[in-house]
Amino acid sequence: MTRLKAPAIITLTTDFGLADHYAGTMKGVLLGRCPSAQIVDISHEIPRFSIEAGAYTISQAAPYFPAGTIHVVVVDPGVGTARKAILVEAIDQVFIAPDNGVLGLVTERDVHTRAREIANVALWLPSPSHTFHGRDVFAPVAAALASGAARPDEVGPVLRQIEQLAGSQPDRLDENTWRGKVLSIDHFGNVITNFPSGAFPQIAGSAFKLEVGNHKICDFQTTFGVAARDRCFAYFGSAGYVELGMNRQSAAAYLGVLPEEMVLLRVTIG
Amino acid sequence: MTRLKAPAIITLTTDFGLADHYAGTMKGVLLGRCPSAQIVDISHEIPRFSIEAGAYTISQAAPYFPAGTIHVVVVDPGVGTARKAILVEAIDQVFIAPDNGVLGLVTERDVHTRAREIANVALWLPSPSHTFHGRDVFAPVAAALASGAARPDEVGPVLRQIEQLAGSQPDRLDENTWRGKVLSIDHFGNVITNFPSGAFPQIAGSAFKLEVGNHKICDFQTTFGVAARDRCFAYFGSAGYVELGMNRQSAAAYLGVLPEEMVLLRVTIG
Amino acid sequence: MTRLKAPAIITLTTDFGLADHYAGTMKGVLLGRCPSAQIVDISHEIPRFSIEAGAYTISQAAPYFPAGTIHVVVVDPGVGTARKAILVEAIDQVFIAPDNGVLGLVTERDVHTRAREIANVALWLPSPSHTFHGRDVFAPVAAALASGAARPDEVGPVLRQIEQLAGSQPDRLDENTWRGKVLSIDHFGNVITNFPSGAFPQIAGSAFKLEVGNHKICDFQTTFGVAARDRCFAYFGSAGYVELGMNRQSAAAYLGVLPEEMVLLRVTIG
Repeated sequence: MTRLKAPAIITLTTDFGLADHYAGTMKGVLLGRCPSAQIVDISHEIPRFSIEAGAYTISQAAPYFPAGTIHVVVVDPGVGTARKAILVEAIDQVFIAPDNGVLGLVTERDVHTRAREIANVALWLPSPSHTFHGRDVFAPVAAALASGAARPDEVGPVLRQIEQLAGSQPDRLDENTWRGKVLSIDHFGNVITNFPSGAFPQIAGSAFKLEVGNHKICDFQTTFGVAARDRCFAYFGSAGYVELGMNRQSAAAYLGVLPEEMVLLRVTIG
Repeated sequence: MTRLKAPAIITLTTDFGLADHYAGTMKGVLLGRCPSAQIVDISHEIPRFSIEAGAYTISQAAPYFPAGTIHVVVVDPGVGTARKAILVEAIDQVFIAPDNGVLGLVTERDVHTRAREIANVALWLPSPSHTFHGRDVFAPVAAALASGAARPDEVGPVLRQIEQLAGSQPDRLDENTWRGKVLSIDHFGNVITNFPSGAFPQIAGSAFKLEVGNHKICDFQTTFGVAARDRCFAYFGSAGYVELGMNRQSAAAYLGVLPEEMVLLRVTIG
Repeated sequence: MTRLKAPAIITLTTDFGLADHYAGTMKGVLLGRCPSAQIVDISHEIPRFSIEAGAYTISQAAPYFPAGTIHVVVVDPGVGTARKAILVEAIDQVFIAPDNGVLGLVTERDVHTRAREIANVALWLPSPSHTFHGRDVFAPVAAALASGAARPDEVGPVLRQIEQLAGSQPDRLDENTWRGKVLSIDHFGNVITNFPSGAFPQIAGSAFKLEVGNHKICDFQTTFGVAARDRCFAYFGSAGYVELGMNRQSAAAYLGVLPEEMVLLRVTIG
């Protein structure tokens, strides 16, 4: 079983935004039940209902946290329906989330993942609402683990299957062509694709063409500041994927591209 | 007197936004005078000058925090004028705010509320500005309490009266009709009314009509994911009030409604 | 050498925004290497690439933090290029940032500033990316200092010169006229100029004219709530500078002014 950190670190990743009381209220529940917990905001600005964006965000941040961290991830369009709440142990950390694929990129990173349904209602707040399980289910369960009031195996039965995330890997269309997609567009307008940098070393050699919408990108650069202005280029991003960027300019706006859009990669052989 | 938590938890609720240094500077003051304090952001994105929104936010989050928490609430269009700074003890917690009604929904929750004017200038920063009492008055007073340097009864004299918030309860117009209002619109476009769910069980039985602008809502659902798309419905929200929502869509945008707008509720008897 | 606080306080000031995983990932690195650190967000919404805004923000917040605080400032359009990473000791605190002028207003506050190049790659994450030094360089160095794993003098050699910020002080054009600029526009639309309040006491006496764009401001008020609506006035702001504001209205929108724009001040003598 995952050994939890003491004192506990609990992270929050939600689509609640920062204007409302929702994230603050969850922190109240956490501190009410585990006053020594260190609460860390990863993001509360996941695009509303975007399971893909939530999955990408937690999969990027979690590996840098210490073993035993508890991550609470709430992107939950199905709140209050029959969708399960789950606890997943992966990469030596614990993840608490709705069972809708939002942990799909974390579980890809670890073959020894174990999932449980959060079925033990004794760990929830009494009289839980139908619309705010962040406060009434996910936070109190996280606090119970963090305080030592419950172990991961006490939240509920092991699940053989949890929801996955479709289409996270590029498809190979022919010997030289792959079809991928836009995983994320960041605050700077950088376009993160789902082409793993390690799998495509040819790109650094510039023997490639990336097609997005009507645009074709054939330049490779190591970083923004070395690139000419007004020119979009590919680079090996910090997330482990091929990204498209520009020097002090939004590549996404230039390319007119949105998350989940198709990206074609053609690699020149020889 | 309210027994304060040790180590202290201090929450912040402001309309300062997140781009400027203001919230960060307040945290510096808090940690400079009480290094062991655990600082929790509830929200810094209260709409500018909206005392109603600040009141709603802190009244929702505070009850979930442990006894002895110190809440600093700064929505303060009258900063530097004759408006008082106050300390309120309610629901076993301490609230520090300008005296403008922003604590009006917290004090409604507790008949044993006690208020004091923050008149002891020895607890303020020296040479306070006229425009940033969050830094110069509210934060140092919170830190003085949190560190044990001062007790609540040392901040200043008891006040018999503090500013209230007008119109927080619905009015009964006739036997079957109530006039309420929009308390808040959340990040998802859900419309929180001021009709307490517990007072209107008929709504779950669907023998009701809610009128907002030109729209009439007669459907009740338990949660978002069970509702048809493009159809606005009422539900018992997690805040304890009747809310209007839609499945993965903004009810507020659909209804064209803003905070403080009137909502009429007609209940069918028998 | 600056004596660091224990347990450590580490602040973050970036232009990363709050939607992406970037700030959260940095916190993971900090807590992975210094679990006892108290992490404080100053702002992650510095306008993209705005070294001036980053410089203003950290110079305002830092003086209120306790001695020994470690501040990490990442506004870094030159990430991955030949620009240096630096550690600066000033005002009894430690600052970690790219060498691009973003610490220019902090170092102005202290004649005993000392700067070092962060050249000791043993303190970085292995295989650092070219585009996310917040995670791979700045955070691990901050954590090494915070945990006691390294002292400031172990990060690299002393630098005789670091990048400065041009034009931070007003120019005197003639006996009665100064040319300054807009340092910052805050969330409320208040316009912070670079005229130090202490240097221009005449303004409180109203014997002045401030010219911005086509507007001339000749009124002085102590604070917002005492001013007439729809009327822009000057006041001595909490940042130590002359500001332009309005009562519950955005002076910046009224004046049509942006950061870095010129502001002329004419003072009437006698």
